[in-house]
Amino acid sequence: MESNLYIGLVHHPIYNMRGEVVATAVTPFDVHDIARCAKTFGAEGYFIITPLESQIELVQRLVQHWVGGAGSVYNPVRKESLALVRVSRTIEEVDHEISDHWRKRVKKVATGASCFPKSIGFEVLRKLLEDRSTPFLLLFGTGWGLTQEVKSNSDYVLAPIVGKGYNHLSVRSAVAIILDRLLGDRMNLSE
Amino acid sequence: MESNLYIGLVHHPIYNMRGEVVATAVTPFDVHDIARCAKTFGAEGYFIITPLESQIELVQRLVQHWVGGAGSVYNPVRKESLALVRVSRTIEEVDHEISDHWRKRVKKVATGASCFPKSIGFEVLRKLLEDRSTPFLLLFGTGWGLTQEVKSNSDYVLAPIVGKGYNHLSVRSAVAIILDRLLGDRMNLSE
Repeated sequence: MESNLYIGLVHHPIYNMRGEVVATAVTPFDVHDIARCAKTFGAEGYFIITPLESQIELVQRLVQHWVGGAGSVYNPVRKESLALVRVSRTIEEVDHEISDHWRKRVKKVATGASCFPKSIGFEVLRKLLEDRSTPFLLLFGTGWGLTQEVKSNSDYVLAPIVGKGYNHLSVRSAVAIILDRLLGDRMNLSE
Repeated sequence: MESNLYIGLVHHPIYNMRGEVVATAVTPFDVHDIARCAKTFGAEGYFIITPLESQIELVQRLVQHWVGGAGSVYNPVRKESLALVRVSRTIEEVDHEISDHWRKRVKKVATGASCFPKSIGFEVLRKLLEDRSTPFLLLFGTGWGLTQEVKSNSDYVLAPIVGKGYNHLSVRSAVAIILDRLLGDRMNLSE
């Protein structure tokens, strides 16, 4: 069955260390790790969002290697996960692509490490996702996170992962934990 | 308060793609991502386990850069997480170090993507960890996973993370999810 959850990894607009809005380079580990999480938890697609031509080409070459090239023979397991990867120039482009496909506006959910006034909890979003007729796009920021504008333009902002006084997870770890909390098998927890 | 949970990332003995027992190279992303997870969820220490001198030196150089060198000024947040990293040559060496410190034998918990006859569930281990007088060492395999011998020599084997028919998470993602399941804030889930 088609899943209604999509992941977007945003390389622009995001903040850098000094709070400036920039475009980050693509980290190949982000492509692999998050694609494997997406496949594991059954997300429908994983969009790498970057306006930089050099980075678009990098992702396309990487995906091509593992999905259709020599890598697909060397390690077929990577083919399955990287087949979920697509590249888009902007969040709006992803929004339109998903909304057009579903003929229904996609609900955008921003994530981040800090608190946001109108944030929703994990259980609330898990329940919302049960409405399988509505597509959701979960947005993750690289660098120092999604801009306030992206959060304001989203339908929801997900509550942060609260640690023991330190909240500097890599985006790869944050995606893994959030997908597990939203889509992970709950029966397995009490096995 | 001192935590009773330690993480060990095993580079030997583990399997390669063909089921041979080998030593893998250290991936710097493993050092960073897992250290940040360890710090976030309050683990007491994170051991990189490798018998290879070149890899021991690599980890020591990396940690030195971020904890005491130029990196500690550039990004002090990394200092906090990487300060948890230690290097050991064997699982036994880690076992002795923790057991000596606690004056009590550390309980070893092996992890893996496949089922194991005597595996325990996440809730069971979460409960066991509440006995704060007993130290636990959670072992993760690189490459194609921990050997059967390591699993057999452990006190427990943790149940695998069950996905939607695909169980090929990166070790970084597996650590993130497992630490969240064992130590993550449960209140936050239903916020």
